[in-house]
Amino acid sequence: MELKKIDHIGIAVHNLASAKAFYRERLGLAIEHEEVKGDMKIAFVPVGEVNIELIESTSEDGVIGKFISRRGEGVHHIAYEVDNIKDALKRLKNDGIRLIDEVPRRGAHGKKVAFLHPKDTNGVLTELVAKKPN
Amino acid sequence: MELKKIDHIGIAVHNLASAKAFYRERLGLAIEHEEVKGDMKIAFVPVGEVNIELIESTSEDGVIGKFISRRGEGVHHIAYEVDNIKDALKRLKNDGIRLIDEVPRRGAHGKKVAFLHPKDTNGVLTELVAKKPN
Repeated sequence: MELKKIDHIGIAVHNLASAKAFYRERLGLAIEHEEVKGDMKIAFVPVGEVNIELIESTSEDGVIGKFISRRGEGVHHIAYEVDNIKDALKRLKNDGIRLIDEVPRRGAHGKKVAFLHPKDTNGVLTELVAKKPN
Repeated sequence: MELKKIDHIGIAVHNLASAKAFYRERLGLAIEHEEVKGDMKIAFVPVGEVNIELIESTSEDGVIGKFISRRGEGVHHIAYEVDNIKDALKRLKNDGIRLIDEVPRRGAHGKKVAFLHPKDTNGVLTELVAKKPN
């Protein structure tokens, strides 16, 4: 498996508008892309080759809503780009790493994504993102 | 202030040896640099332009030891590279962002670093790293 770069870092925030303002006005970064996905409002902030993915939940019962209730705002996951996501998942599973998604699903930007279990990745919820959106 | 890239992502781990084995053997990444800094054993794992900084505490009372006691292993901080760390700190302070380090101190790799308060950065402990080690 070849991980060539970090695709994005997902950060759970209370309020997307104020988080965007912080990244734009205080850190001097640009907001490049926004989308709504289920109960999540998402904004991407490129920094070099990595995107910061700011995520606000519109529901308290969703993944991000529960995360914030439990531990507050903060880093939710780290996503790595892989050339072949199916091969990567197969290899990790063979190595005994528990997969949250056995089969890739459609993530932000329409890319194929899959999450690994944080109990097997030093407490870091880890996502794989297919390089090509097919 | 210009943030050009993420310098590193700090991850608090129980055991540096097993974390290194995970990154090397499961994710196929190389360990590039290791150092001991106070009560922290640190290993750097480059992925593209970013380093993953794996940190094990040798004391339960240190910053990382307390972090793990409170919430377990996981992402501890995100560090951005800046050209001029003093100017960046001055500007952020003027903007009302609380600084943990008012004056830069010496971090890993001998670089000048300073931390911002997570209450002002959407729950993400944020570090600035000076590009040049002087």
